[in-house]
Amino acid sequence: MTDSLAHLGKTLIVAPHPDDEVLGCGGTIARLADAGQEVHVAVVTRGYEPAFPEALIEQVRAELAEAHKVLGVAKCHFLDLPAAALDTLPAAKLNAAIGGLVREIAPETLFLPFIGDIHVDHQLVFTAGLVSARPRGPEAPRRVYAYETLSETNWAAPGVTETFAPNVYFDISDTIERKLRAFACFESQVKPFPDERSLKTIEALATVRGSTVYLPAAEAFMLLREIG
Amino acid sequence: MTDSLAHLGKTLIVAPHPDDEVLGCGGTIARLADAGQEVHVAVVTRGYEPAFPEALIEQVRAELAEAHKVLGVAKCHFLDLPAAALDTLPAAKLNAAIGGLVREIAPETLFLPFIGDIHVDHQLVFTAGLVSARPRGPEAPRRVYAYETLSETNWAAPGVTETFAPNVYFDISDTIERKLRAFACFESQVKPFPDERSLKTIEALATVRGSTVYLPAAEAFMLLREIG
Amino acid sequence: MTDSLAHLGKTLIVAPHPDDEVLGCGGTIARLADAGQEVHVAVVTRGYEPAFPEALIEQVRAELAEAHKVLGVAKCHFLDLPAAALDTLPAAKLNAAIGGLVREIAPETLFLPFIGDIHVDHQLVFTAGLVSARPRGPEAPRRVYAYETLSETNWAAPGVTETFAPNVYFDISDTIERKLRAFACFESQVKPFPDERSLKTIEALATVRGSTVYLPAAEAFMLLREIG
Amino acid sequence: MTDSLAHLGKTLIVAPHPDDEVLGCGGTIARLADAGQEVHVAVVTRGYEPAFPEALIEQVRAELAEAHKVLGVAKCHFLDLPAAALDTLPAAKLNAAIGGLVREIAPETLFLPFIGDIHVDHQLVFTAGLVSARPRGPEAPRRVYAYETLSETNWAAPGVTETFAPNVYFDISDTIERKLRAFACFESQVKPFPDERSLKTIEALATVRGSTVYLPAAEAFMLLREIG
Amino acid sequence: MTDSLAHLGKTLIVAPHPDDEVLGCGGTIARLADAGQEVHVAVVTRGYEPAFPEALIEQVRAELAEAHKVLGVAKCHFLDLPAAALDTLPAAKLNAAIGGLVREIAPETLFLPFIGDIHVDHQLVFTAGLVSARPRGPEAPRRVYAYETLSETNWAAPGVTETFAPNVYFDISDTIERKLRAFACFESQVKPFPDERSLKTIEALATVRGSTVYLPAAEAFMLLREIG
Amino acid sequence: MTDSLAHLGKTLIVAPHPDDEVLGCGGTIARLADAGQEVHVAVVTRGYEPAFPEALIEQVRAELAEAHKVLGVAKCHFLDLPAAALDTLPAAKLNAAIGGLVREIAPETLFLPFIGDIHVDHQLVFTAGLVSARPRGPEAPRRVYAYETLSETNWAAPGVTETFAPNVYFDISDTIERKLRAFACFESQVKPFPDERSLKTIEALATVRGSTVYLPAAEAFMLLREIG
Repeated sequence: MTDSLAHLGKTLIVAPHPDDEVLGCGGTIARLADAGQEVHVAVVTRGYEPAFPEALIEQVRAELAEAHKVLGVAKCHFLDLPAAALDTLPAAKLNAAIGGLVREIAPETLFLPFIGDIHVDHQLVFTAGLVSARPRGPEAPRRVYAYETLSETNWAAPGVTETFAPNVYFDISDTIERKLRAFACFESQVKPFPDERSLKTIEALATVRGSTVYLPAAEAFMLLREIG
Repeated sequence: MTDSLAHLGKTLIVAPHPDDEVLGCGGTIARLADAGQEVHVAVVTRGYEPAFPEALIEQVRAELAEAHKVLGVAKCHFLDLPAAALDTLPAAKLNAAIGGLVREIAPETLFLPFIGDIHVDHQLVFTAGLVSARPRGPEAPRRVYAYETLSETNWAAPGVTETFAPNVYFDISDTIERKLRAFACFESQVKPFPDERSLKTIEALATVRGSTVYLPAAEAFMLLREIG
Repeated sequence: MTDSLAHLGKTLIVAPHPDDEVLGCGGTIARLADAGQEVHVAVVTRGYEPAFPEALIEQVRAELAEAHKVLGVAKCHFLDLPAAALDTLPAAKLNAAIGGLVREIAPETLFLPFIGDIHVDHQLVFTAGLVSARPRGPEAPRRVYAYETLSETNWAAPGVTETFAPNVYFDISDTIERKLRAFACFESQVKPFPDERSLKTIEALATVRGSTVYLPAAEAFMLLREIG
Repeated sequence: MTDSLAHLGKTLIVAPHPDDEVLGCGGTIARLADAGQEVHVAVVTRGYEPAFPEALIEQVRAELAEAHKVLGVAKCHFLDLPAAALDTLPAAKLNAAIGGLVREIAPETLFLPFIGDIHVDHQLVFTAGLVSARPRGPEAPRRVYAYETLSETNWAAPGVTETFAPNVYFDISDTIERKLRAFACFESQVKPFPDERSLKTIEALATVRGSTVYLPAAEAFMLLREIG
Repeated sequence: MTDSLAHLGKTLIVAPHPDDEVLGCGGTIARLADAGQEVHVAVVTRGYEPAFPEALIEQVRAELAEAHKVLGVAKCHFLDLPAAALDTLPAAKLNAAIGGLVREIAPETLFLPFIGDIHVDHQLVFTAGLVSARPRGPEAPRRVYAYETLSETNWAAPGVTETFAPNVYFDISDTIERKLRAFACFESQVKPFPDERSLKTIEALATVRGSTVYLPAAEAFMLLREIG
Repeated sequence: MTDSLAHLGKTLIVAPHPDDEVLGCGGTIARLADAGQEVHVAVVTRGYEPAFPEALIEQVRAELAEAHKVLGVAKCHFLDLPAAALDTLPAAKLNAAIGGLVREIAPETLFLPFIGDIHVDHQLVFTAGLVSARPRGPEAPRRVYAYETLSETNWAAPGVTETFAPNVYFDISDTIERKLRAFACFESQVKPFPDERSLKTIEALATVRGSTVYLPAAEAFMLLREIG
């Protein structure tokens, strides 16, 4: 039987930092990959010394490769812009980097971080991602979603700043296990509970998001635009 | 080639009054029907004397039948609750009427009027429609959309009351013609321009909504919930 | 050591239906009771035949008494207005019922259901609760919070209708166990997972709400007004 | 020199209860009257026994007449619907009452109470007022404003329910004195400070609203619609 | 007979890039000019090589002059800040440029682009424009409006980011023709339908905005502040 | 008797510029100090030549010291970042400066300026302040509030940009006198009425905020997060 997400087609997940794509879309990535869709990930930034030791960067990259293998990511694209410093770049440069990749991959479906996340890198990637998806021709992405990121989305000021109020729930009952396994690959990033970046919290969030729509596990999104 | 809306499946449009479904979803109905989907319409109210002369009611019903034939509606369900008086009914009664029909038809996709419309009938049907779509089991509708209704949606106080800010655009380039023809069937309802209920305004709105996503004509919606 | 919620003082939880107070505030109730605060619950409605069989009503009341004993509720007040039918009452009557009780108990802290809940009973109790808390004199409640209710708060149209975006988190790490036990008393109301009214979902929500603020378990609220 | 509000033309203030029009628009009424505009007031409700003793009603009416004389109201229209009970009327009846008056007076400018006020009478009058102003023809009012009412507008849940965020400020430096005098006529309604319905609070609010736009005193409004 | 916009007085339109003022306010400009008002335009940015070839810049300037002649613009002021790069300037510099011009022209009415537009230049000009209009004295502009710009306003994420929900409609039935003619002057900028920057979409938008208020054609705005 | 704000504990007020903390929190500071709480102030910026003459800076500092003595501020911390130019710094640098101080002081309660203030310095300090308060461990502040600043909070575009809608009111009836005296210390900053930065407006705002909750004087806040 056809997967009910088969219409998503070729998909690109834009992650400000490595692991955001796993926190926000890990279960959906695995499901799309199982259904034979081509899933790309763009990692927008990388850490640079001295703020980020090179050894750590290399470790994270290796963990990322491992995690992407678990999930079935088709290809990971590194834009290598400076982490925690996107605000120091001209917006035009960020737009060009993300826009260029979107034109190259030409995804049907695009996932972006949420503008209300507390990290300014997330906010800027959201906006640049939307710029890249402007419907200036028939090739623009058909669907644009924002995903939620534990340790980012709940820590701005929901109710005052933009509030993540999901209207899309994708069933990840069959892939939550792999999502957890993929996040566990990030030994440098996973934290002990009650930190939001813990396996227990990831699982609890999937349970809550799923239960809202009578599913054992789900990932939740806000639809930004759909062209059908 | 498969229509890109094929995943919508069996569809129910809930219209507070006859013709709302044409104003909000006429082009989409025709497109779904063309693609072989089963499209149902529920007309929630009917006029009663003395406020609404019986002859007018019968005329509107005949016009409606004509319009639905143009669009390819599979079946129209009449709930016959009192028009412009839904606020005089217990909410439980409205919930039961709409909920009963949703359970009977079991649509995969549900279209509702918008809560921010100025007519209290629209507001109440929105809420009762959402009640009927609560995900209390696996049979709940997979997709719920709100549509916009000329002469209703722009006349509350957008920016103060709930604001229709569409995030879904369905291509009706091939069916805008039939949408206009269907609305023209309502001789009792169509008004001369510049009234919003004029053919010229319907067409201009389709042009604007389409152009926003690089299409010659579109209908716009707000996604309320998608389970994928 | 003093409980960090000791300043809440005498507290009243207003529940449209039995068990809403447990879903929304169960852990907080137990904590306040442990700290020696006097916690009152007002159950606004009761079911009436034929919609609700009397035997069921009696069973729920017995379950409620059991649950309240687990939590340490000081006193439960029954307003006995008709369940799922508050919209058929004059607002003045609902205002009088809730307002009378608030004047009688004179709570320092008041908890209300959320206006964005899908059940119209919840919406009306929210508004009547706020009316009862108007600061028309020095005796008005010092703090008014809205709580979230699984199976109600997530099922309207968050992002379109009022969105529950919590800004208050109360630690229930020591009382989540009793909250679950209290909800389990409602044999007639507890549902198997993945229904939102399941023990697993209640626990997962406490985990997510807690983790957001680095606690093992929390209940989340929106502050409506604080006078300090 | 022409008054800068001369373009407002014939004006109608819709007041749910006597004195709302003074609290929200008293200074503006006096200014318009001074400038030779025709200002009408519609008082939507009146109290009925037993909730409201007839003697009190008569007293308030007399106070109202006095206040209107101070301000220069051209004519006051009494709709005599039941106070604190508009929710018990069919919406169609309220629409007919207000709509009929709007058609009769044909004001260029319309002032309504705010939908976010805590009193359900205010909420319903807001909606019915907007219905009466629907631009179904060239005779619809050119400008519709919502005014703020002390003891109503700040007591719902601003930030959760609709929030009064003014964008219009009318200079009442020359008429604040008369506004205070007019409100003082309501001996039955004026309250000692710190009640919001005190002369001191009315004056302080005018000071704050004025100062925001570098004026000694102003009344603030939200624009709902302007057709220019 | 006096134009009903005669009270707007001397007017300044702030355009991030040439042609924004035509898309957003072209019909209103022509109408004000016809009524004898002095209408100024400030073009905030210009393209610089290598991103923008000088020949193109000169062409656009010539087109702009032509368009302004069609509309009757009194004077166009060029601030010559770098296009698509306002985020690389200190905010203080942008504030000084726009603020200086506002002090020099001392307009009674100010039109700004909308903060929710997708282009960061528009967002920054909105904020700088508001800074220039702070009511720090009696000379601040009396009215500040935000206009909508096709190809900008609909392409962020309305409903998530700031949403353009117009409350002001100015009749351009007599000047839509000249608005279209003015935009057609921009041979380098006009695009074939279904691009939003096409003559057909401009006309359709005017039709929709007009029809909402029973006019053949209108431009829509959001009022940011009025001092009356 | 214990002050009802005793649970706030050690408190830090973050002020973008000297005197913001007095405008927003002066009465609360004095009250907390009276109750024996340790109140810190962080002044984020200072003026630098040539934009700000050194003599003025020194004068303001002296005025500030005087004002803080009146209020009972325990310690004032100067971060000395460039005034009216925070947007020219990398966000990481602002985060480090504020975050470092928050870690050093470890306040239980944190007060921030409001993100909707018109000054970009205020917006950036809000966000950096929230970053510093992320609940990454048990030591995060227990309460985070945003305060309102006359001449900043009302001059963006409330209703379009983030709107200050207070839900917290702290009684300053006993300290409003000292708040006024403290602001009067800023001879270089106080302005004659009707400027918002006048003593008369400060007092009127305290009167309005107080009266809303039946108090002679109050300061109003928006709660951003409470962990209890």
